[in-house]
Amino acid sequence: MRAEIITIGTELLHGHIDDANAAYIASRLVAAGIDVQWKTTVGDSEGQIGDALRQALARSEIVVATGGLGPTQDDLTCRVIATVLDRPLVVDRAVLESMRRRFAEQGLPMSRNNERQALVPDGATVFANPRGTAPGLLIRTREGKVVVAMPGIPGEMRPMLTEQVIPTLRAALDVGVRIRSRVLKTCGIAESALDQAIGDLIRSSRNPMIGLLAHPGEVHIRLIVTAGSEVECDRCLDELEANLRERLGELIFGRDGDRLEEVVGRLLRDGGLRIAVAESCTGGLVCHRLTNVPGSSAYFVRGEVAYSDQAKESALGVPRALLARHGAVSQAVAQAMASGIRDAAGADLALGITGIAGPGGGSEQKPVGLTYIAIAASEGVASREFRFLADRGTNKLLASQAALDLVRRHLLSARNAART
Amino acid sequence: MRAEIITIGTELLHGHIDDANAAYIASRLVAAGIDVQWKTTVGDSEGQIGDALRQALARSEIVVATGGLGPTQDDLTCRVIATVLDRPLVVDRAVLESMRRRFAEQGLPMSRNNERQALVPDGATVFANPRGTAPGLLIRTREGKVVVAMPGIPGEMRPMLTEQVIPTLRAALDVGVRIRSRVLKTCGIAESALDQAIGDLIRSSRNPMIGLLAHPGEVHIRLIVTAGSEVECDRCLDELEANLRERLGELIFGRDGDRLEEVVGRLLRDGGLRIAVAESCTGGLVCHRLTNVPGSSAYFVRGEVAYSDQAKESALGVPRALLARHGAVSQAVAQAMASGIRDAAGADLALGITGIAGPGGGSEQKPVGLTYIAIAASEGVASREFRFLADRGTNKLLASQAALDLVRRHLLSARNAART
Repeated sequence: MRAEIITIGTELLHGHIDDANAAYIASRLVAAGIDVQWKTTVGDSEGQIGDALRQALARSEIVVATGGLGPTQDDLTCRVIATVLDRPLVVDRAVLESMRRRFAEQGLPMSRNNERQALVPDGATVFANPRGTAPGLLIRTREGKVVVAMPGIPGEMRPMLTEQVIPTLRAALDVGVRIRSRVLKTCGIAESALDQAIGDLIRSSRNPMIGLLAHPGEVHIRLIVTAGSEVECDRCLDELEANLRERLGELIFGRDGDRLEEVVGRLLRDGGLRIAVAESCTGGLVCHRLTNVPGSSAYFVRGEVAYSDQAKESALGVPRALLARHGAVSQAVAQAMASGIRDAAGADLALGITGIAGPGGGSEQKPVGLTYIAIAASEGVASREFRFLADRGTNKLLASQAALDLVRRHLLSARNAART
Repeated sequence: MRAEIITIGTELLHGHIDDANAAYIASRLVAAGIDVQWKTTVGDSEGQIGDALRQALARSEIVVATGGLGPTQDDLTCRVIATVLDRPLVVDRAVLESMRRRFAEQGLPMSRNNERQALVPDGATVFANPRGTAPGLLIRTREGKVVVAMPGIPGEMRPMLTEQVIPTLRAALDVGVRIRSRVLKTCGIAESALDQAIGDLIRSSRNPMIGLLAHPGEVHIRLIVTAGSEVECDRCLDELEANLRERLGELIFGRDGDRLEEVVGRLLRDGGLRIAVAESCTGGLVCHRLTNVPGSSAYFVRGEVAYSDQAKESALGVPRALLARHGAVSQAVAQAMASGIRDAAGADLALGITGIAGPGGGSEQKPVGLTYIAIAASEGVASREFRFLADRGTNKLLASQAALDLVRRHLLSARNAART
């Protein structure tokens, strides 16, 4: 069962807005066992939309389109589908009624333009859109192929796709073979080293297939399996995951949607521990990431962005002599920052981060990217030196990643020590 | 002169990675006066790449492809181009030499796979790739159309596109009509209010065309003009921009690539002022944004992420009685936070931000999204109440945006007052 995706809109075509819809739809379809084989983007042009739809129907069994369903003259999708499939446009009473109610509730008059949104190709299944006015629709061609159209606004399209379109597609089509994928996320190891560690599996395993994808500060291992049922897919993935975990151990920090800051948050919560952060070169990013997690106020107490020497002294109690002797970017200052914020905040655990994010500020002895990260706990302070080689923004991200990973590993060894 | 874009790769097609390349290439081509009319994404399949290329050449004068130029068997782009254009593959001596040098410098052996990367269709112009091994290429068909292929890694593709491909395209083709665009960025006004303020211009102006695009916390006004020369384009854009600035005044904070934190940074630097930040619900994001700007250590001195009441007391000197009387999320505490960090850091200007980012922590009196932002300066402390209605991440972003905008407007009025 092959699908393709058509995204419609001149703003998309010209790159003025990112086409996140196409990737989202593709990943949901693939996860639902529907293969995606082609993606097209065209502008708000009747001719282009028609050509794209005809070509897609010649290649694939399922065509999923987004965009061009709004109330203005630019919104052509419904009309083009009706023309290509040779169906008249008819008024959908339910859509018209729900639009009237929506406008009445807001005390607004409904325009003729909005009434146009209730016109759908004859025979279409209509998907309600509780978050906007444009409904979605699914229509079968005479050849038994399926055309789906959804609004282009991500907040309206995403729930419509997952809650209505995909269940309808799966019920309507007999999707025999299941495709499932899983991502294992690693940090603290480079892509080439990871390839060395599991390269034999990558090259020998055909189903599940294994692929590596590098992101700043983490490398993802993607497993894709096809089998006759979801249970069988999951069994294969579980087996391979166990195998990979045995080889890689703590290098794997999470799975699928897990973010490193969530994993760290769970470990802190489980251990009943509170954390504080003193950061210089990361400039607030470590605190920002930790506090992105809902409920983080349970374990995150305080952060200090000590950008100047004076702030390191007055807010963290880093001795002036230490700063003078070693310089702000040094092992000794990172450790003093971590101890200082731990004491001041009364936290169980604390990070101290100091480095040179760039592009300026480097020297021969202390080049751009040099970073020290310290972790202070009841048993003492430890620190590590890093050297990041990217631009300012990426250096900040890589340092934040290394800092969070240091906390993660500290908490894992503490947990393991407690268990033995 | 119409172009289209083909992005190649199964990971892209299945939505496992975002296809940022397509949007980047489209926006650069449009900015260079080349119209983009179609985008296609296909997997690593010889048949699909070939079909996509043939269809694109039937529609357009320029086809720009990325991806599939790597050293592995999956990388098919060069071979497909040679087949579709009926050219033999020949070894490019310069590419081979530069690859040999690259490997020798790193003390690595060069594999047969890498040698394949030196094979290019006969007659192609080759673009050097100083950041990787896969070269780019440009080749003219017998019909005078142009096919460009570039590597898919964004860090290699982007400089190749702007430094080599676009200049070559512009020299090779007579691009008669110029298209230029400009973005004016506003904050502190909703899209609907902005539409009311300049709706007459939006609806009456055909060239330049005016469009609005809403982002979290800012609305962008995009101007697109076509004219016979770049000078004429710029003249039209300057005139319209002056008109819009007269109507909107300080609502416009920047142009094109400007980010709000850069604009704030420039104003601080120009005024010789130093800033400190005390943030609670934004959790470090304001500090992170301010320190994303290279050179920000000249004006950003210290940030305090006071997530707990205790941190607000001990680090910022917010009186316990004030916290007890008004609660942590209150006008009074925001002001005390701003004054506290200003005094402690010896800064000229300081922000205090307290609120409820959600999803938990709200009550009937103090609902999720309620946020107070205070600004402290030599002349005193002022604050504002906001109510953000999005999810946790977006609420943090909106609050950081409002806080930075408060600083911007404060600095603008200070500057204007000094001038009069």
